[in-house]
Order: sequence, then C-alpha cells, then structure tokens
Amino acid sequence: MTEDQTPVQHRIVVVGGGFGGLETVYNLRGVEVAITVVDQRNHHLFQPLLYQVATSTLATSEIAWPIRHLLRRYKNVLTLLGTVEAVDTAAKTVITADGDVIPYDTLVLATGARHAYFGHDDWEPFAPGLKTLEDATTIRRRILTAFEMAEREPDPQKRAQYLTFVIIGGGPTGVEIAGTIADLARDTLKGDFREIDPASARVVLIEGGSRVLGAFKEDMSAYAKMALEKLGVTVHLGNPVTACHADGVEFAGQTLRARTIIWAAGVQASPAAKWLGVPADRAGRVVINPDLTVPGHPEIFVIGDTATVANGGKGTVPGIAPAAKQQGKHIAKTIKARLAGDNAPKPFLYHHAGDLATIGKRAAVTDFGWFKLKGYLAWWLWGLAHIYYLIGVRNRLAVALSWLWISVSGVRSARLITQRDAAEEDKSA
Amino acid sequence: MTEDQTPVQHRIVVVGGGFGGLETVYNLRGVEVAITVVDQRNHHLFQPLLYQVATSTLATSEIAWPIRHLLRRYKNVLTLLGTVEAVDTAAKTVITADGDVIPYDTLVLATGARHAYFGHDDWEPFAPGLKTLEDATTIRRRILTAFEMAEREPDPQKRAQYLTFVIIGGGPTGVEIAGTIADLARDTLKGDFREIDPASARVVLIEGGSRVLGAFKEDMSAYAKMALEKLGVTVHLGNPVTACHADGVEFAGQTLRARTIIWAAGVQASPAAKWLGVPADRAGRVVINPDLTVPGHPEIFVIGDTATVANGGKGTVPGIAPAAKQQGKHIAKTIKARLAGDNAPKPFLYHHAGDLATIGKRAAVTDFGWFKLKGYLAWWLWGLAHIYYLIGVRNRLAVALSWLWISVSGVRSARLITQRDAAEEDKSA
Repeated sequence: MTEDQTPVQHRIVVVGGGFGGLETVYNLRGVEVAITVVDQRNHHLFQPLLYQVATSTLATSEIAWPIRHLLRRYKNVLTLLGTVEAVDTAAKTVITADGDVIPYDTLVLATGARHAYFGHDDWEPFAPGLKTLEDATTIRRRILTAFEMAEREPDPQKRAQYLTFVIIGGGPTGVEIAGTIADLARDTLKGDFREIDPASARVVLIEGGSRVLGAFKEDMSAYAKMALEKLGVTVHLGNPVTACHADGVEFAGQTLRARTIIWAAGVQASPAAKWLGVPADRAGRVVINPDLTVPGHPEIFVIGDTATVANGGKGTVPGIAPAAKQQGKHIAKTIKARLAGDNAPKPFLYHHAGDLATIGKRAAVTDFGWFKLKGYLAWWLWGLAHIYYLIGVRNRLAVALSWLWISVSGVRSARLITQRDAAEEDKSA
Repeated sequence: MTEDQTPVQHRIVVVGGGFGGLETVYNLRGVEVAITVVDQRNHHLFQPLLYQVATSTLATSEIAWPIRHLLRRYKNVLTLLGTVEAVDTAAKTVITADGDVIPYDTLVLATGARHAYFGHDDWEPFAPGLKTLEDATTIRRRILTAFEMAEREPDPQKRAQYLTFVIIGGGPTGVEIAGTIADLARDTLKGDFREIDPASARVVLIEGGSRVLGAFKEDMSAYAKMALEKLGVTVHLGNPVTACHADGVEFAGQTLRARTIIWAAGVQASPAAKWLGVPADRAGRVVINPDLTVPGHPEIFVIGDTATVANGGKGTVPGIAPAAKQQGKHIAKTIKARLAGDNAPKPFLYHHAGDLATIGKRAAVTDFGWFKLKGYLAWWLWGLAHIYYLIGVRNRLAVALSWLWISVSGVRSARLITQRDAAEEDKSA
C-alpha cells in the first residue's frame, strides 16, 4: 500500500477452529486486524475427551461448542462454515469448496489431522478411528451394538467374537478407550443382560512398540499396563497389526477374532502441504521453520497437528493440544510484532507442561516433571485439569455432574445407538 | 397345556419400548410371566421433548435411555434389539428381520407411528418430520446450517430464503418448534454473526385447520397464537400446504420461499395392522376392541399410536403419551386378571389429565380442566411436569440445568451440526 491510499486493515485468515486456530484468534483480541476463521465444522471439539463420547460417558454437546459462539465477542472476527480446497500463494487467497475466494495478508493453517492406516485404507470400515464427533458416535454405536448382538446370538463362538473388543494403538487414546470399555463391560452394563454376562467381554490392546504410552516416562508406561491388566484388559506389546478384516485382526502370525476393532494407531495431517505445494513428512505434516512459518512464505504459518517442527535441540514439538495452543499464542505475538514494524523471525520453543492419561474411572498417570502421581488421586487431578480446560461454566458443571454420577452409580447416561450404518439403514427402510 | 405336563410360564412379547410398551412391563413386575421386549432401537425416547433436541436446547442423551437399562431390575424381562417384520397369528410367533422367531402366548404391539405426508412422500426430503433422535439431529443440522449459509450469501433474496423457516402443522409439536426457533434466532444467536442479523429470520407456522392447538380449548388456541405472534412468528390458518419443494412451500395459491421446512402435520401408524392382516383406519392404526384387543384375537393387544379406539361415548383416545401409558397399565391389569382365571373383557376408559404446550421459553398453556394457566407461570408448571416425568434423577438434574442455563443466559449448548446429509458427505469425501 502506498502512503496516499487509505490504510487497509491487515487481513488474517485462520483455517481451522481447533486448539491452535482459536488460541491464535484469542491472542489477537483488540488488535486492529480483520480476521476470518474458516472451518468445515461449525464446532470446536475438545478432542482430549472425545473417547468419552465414544464410550457412552459424555454427550456430544458436552465437548463441542459452536466456533462462532466462542468468538462472538471478537468483533474483528468473521466465522465462516466452509471446506478449504486450495490456497493460491501467489494471489494470496484461500479457495473453498463452494467457490468462495478469501484474500489474506497473513494465513494461519491449523487444520489438524485425521486418523491414518499407514497405506491400509481398506482397514477403515473394520477399524474406525476417532477424530470427529461422528467417529465417536460410530464407535459408540458399534460397541453397544456388539453387546446387543451377543445377547441374541446362540452360538458360543460367534458370541465370544461379539464380546471381543480390540483397540489398536497404545498411546493415550488407545489406553483410555481400552480402560473405559473394560469399565463399561464390568460396571455400567452389569445386570442389564439376561443371556450374556457383559463382564465376560475381552478387551485387547495391541501396541506395535515395546510399551504403552510410549511418549511418557517408562515407569508411567509400566504402571499404565499394570492398571489396564487389573481392569481385565489384555495388553499385547511388540507386534504391529498386519491386517484388519470383518472377522478380526491379524498380528504376531495369529488371528484374533473380534467384531469390534477401534483404530488409535496413526494419524495423517490434513492436506495443507498439498495446498501450499511444499515438502511434508511421512505423515503429511508441513515441515516448517523454527518461527512456525512456511519456508519461502513468511506470511503463512502452519501450526498444530498439520505441521512438524524441531523443538530447539530436543526432538520435535509433539502433536498435542497444549503444543498447538502455545504455537497459536506464539504466532499471535509474532503477528503483533510485525504490525509494529518488527519483522525479525521469532523461533518457537515448546514448553512441556506434563503428561496425563486415565485408565478407567479409578486410575490415571500424571507427570509434571517436578511432580508425578499415579492411581486414584492422579485420576482426580486428571479430572480437575480437564474440567478446568473445558469451555464455559455450564459445560464444566455438566461434565462434572456426568463424571460424579458415573463415579457414584456406574451409570453412563449416553448409551445411545444412533445414526446406523448405511447398510443397516437400507435394511430398515 | 395338559395337567400332566410341568406348567410352562406364560410368555408375553411386547413390541416397542415406548411409553405404552414400557408401562405394560412396569405393571407386570413380579408377576410369574416370561416377558420379551423387542425394539428396533436400543433406547426409549421421551418424545414430548424431542423438539428441544431439534432446536439445540437439549442433548440427545438427556431424553433417551437404554431400554434394557430401564428394565434391568425386571428379572423376568428379556430385552432384544430387533426389527419386527411379521406376526404369525396362527403359530403365535413374532418374526424379526434377522430371522429370529419369538413365540408368545400374549402379544402387545406398541410400535408407535412415523410422520406421514398424506400420500406426498416426495415432500419428505424437503420437509423432514420429527419422530426419532436422528430426525431431531437432522432438523437441528438444517436449522443451524441455514444461518451459516445466510452468513455466507451475498445475494439478499437468497439470504432471505435461508433465513425463512416454515413449520407445517399447528399441533403442540409445530407450536413448540416454531416458538423455539424464534427464541433461537432472536436470543441465542444474538451477536454470533457479522453479515446477518439472526433476529431478522422469518418463522412461519402453517396450519390447515382454523386454529393452532386444535385439540385444546379455543381460548388456549387463541392465547397460543397471540404468544407466537409476540415472539415474531407468522401464523397462517385455514389453508393446507399443497406442495413442498427445494424452493419452499405452496399454500393458499402462493409460494413461500424457504430453505428450511419442518413437517409437524401428520402421522402414520407403524405397520402392525399389516402384520396382523386386520382392518386399519386411514392413518394405518389398528381398529381395536374397547378392551384394547384385536377383533378375533383376545391374546393380542394393540396400544398407543398404533391403535385407534373409541373412548366410551366421547370421541377416540388421543395419540399422546399419557393415553399410551394408561393403556399399558390397563392391559397389564387385564393380563393379571386372566392369569387368575378371569377372562371377562375389561373395557378401557381414558382419563384426560390435561393439555400442556410451550410457546418459546417464557410462555405456555396448561389446561387441567379444573385449573387453567397461561403465560410465564404456566411455563414453569410445564417445565416441572416434564422434569417430573423424565426418567432418572441424573436426567432430571441435567435437563433442569440446561433449562435454567438457557433461561438465565440464553445460551443453548447443543448447537451442533453433525451427521451431514449424504449429498454433503459425498462432496467432502
């Protein structure tokens, strides 16, 4: 812009209303910029608790909130529901599937990741992953339907197959799902069936690596494995799954017959690297500069699960919510500095606050470095931390009530089989 | 059974876990019979509040509970998830879509109704009805998406079309949906949009008859119409809709352009009459004897929305939850009498407790005959009555919290666009 023109407001487009995208916007509050937030969903999702929707503990609305409502007081923000299909880095525009063309001066891509099958996309129908609310209600439906089918099945072998639940992947999500299904079977469903004993369900966690919670400290992994086994979960380590099909999973040269398989093993970044035409790592993450910009494009930031970046000298920044939030805050600061005329690159340094994971409704591991805790107290700490990070007083109350209720009564309120598979729909129509 | 055989327990099959079916089972507690409850859903649905899920007020899990959990303490009850496809009245068996054959001595059909289009099934894609949880999330998605599309639409005419909501049918469901959408637009969404003013949304209620709430007393209808108009709802009386299509609805010789149409006008009973091969009325309801049995089949009861029966000399029993519950109680009593050797037919007499309907979140009409109330106090009475009839302390707390929160803050927590239309899915895939 030349000096004789009216100064035009700096336009920032943020793609993705997840932890990274929202944190960016939150930290630009009151700044004289025009922000457009684009997301293909109308809601921000509190992904760390998504497994609780998948296991009937929480309702969908307890962990998801309309993005535009979260940003209603940010008068410089326009929220749009739309799916980005391309970025024109020369024209500096974002193009949506509906043909909208949104110009930017600064672009923030925070579009997250989907679960991925390491080149085995044909496994997906048999082993759904967990990234969206729909994924969660799909998994919830499959788990609950398996018990229903077992109740109706006279053949003991087939019945056992319905009552076998396999979770692939021993990270926090896999561990948390396995623990909660074990609780569900042994506690929540107790007394609800006549022909089967839900407590006889087998829950099997398969992890290709040498321990569960591989990113945590070793003693935490050992404790988590023990706590899972105490809940009745069978933990298999060291052998990756080699196939998933309608009959079960293959691993370590054997077939484990199961009707319900849940994928918690791998993720694939959103196609941001393709939109930009820049290099990506094996998981599709954009390889970015230490200041979180795209090489050759200081006006484009990529953060969260969509990017990979070295963390000073210590490995890479992990793909977890706190990291995405720190990155969002960091780039908001960078943008503010630039608007003030300071264009020096600001390298990002991730501060790891700690690790948290629950195993069922009575145990957890928490590791803040200076302070470690395992067991029941850790579970309370985990619960308080998550309630603290939920958005809105009402949701905190609702989730606290749900957890308290389950803790006291064992009853999970959200045991709903909804949105049947397309195949089932056809049959019932 | 002859006397030299071991007496076999009397087998009762109840098809449908709605208000009528469950009430039958509840009233057979402790009786020496073997009961099987079959439902194509795993959950009992509190239908009087379903419109609140469709309008983002309540979460799905707040108004639906697993049938087998509700019946867990009834040790003589087996709950099966299954879709009934036929009844063999000669062999006395019920046949499910999966080929299960369930024998009965007494059969209770309480399979409810679906919404119906009076021979215009082609209207359904444009004007979804409201009978299941999936219907409710579909309507919720369409309402919320309409506002999102309006925000993105530069053409004022198209924008106005997105912001026009038509509700067809002026019974309690239609009145309650219209009032809540008006509240949503004027209150909940306030401040969330930048390009549109949600309060400019048009909400139009079309009723073919001469008044809304046609089953209520006339002064109640007049009050409800006035209260709706006060909320900004346009009420059209006396002209039925003659067509629904992608562009809007046709009535009174004109086209009302709208992108969101909700059907609350007619219902069609489940195919129980076809299963039995017996006469049905125009809405597909089985015409039953005064004792709620099927003519020629004293061992088969049909109740709730699946049946039509004269109410003594005063019209027919209405298709509402309290009537279904009274019928369930009545046939449980009849079955117990028969088991005690008393086979005399027991005619059913419906007792009408009262009429209740809300208009938005500040007004309601309640009419208990001896006691009528309109306005804000009636709304509280309506709320207390519904919380009382919800199942479980936890749900009562959760729903009370949700309502209180909306009443104080205007914020509706369940504003989620989920489970997109198949067409949209294809596009995003």
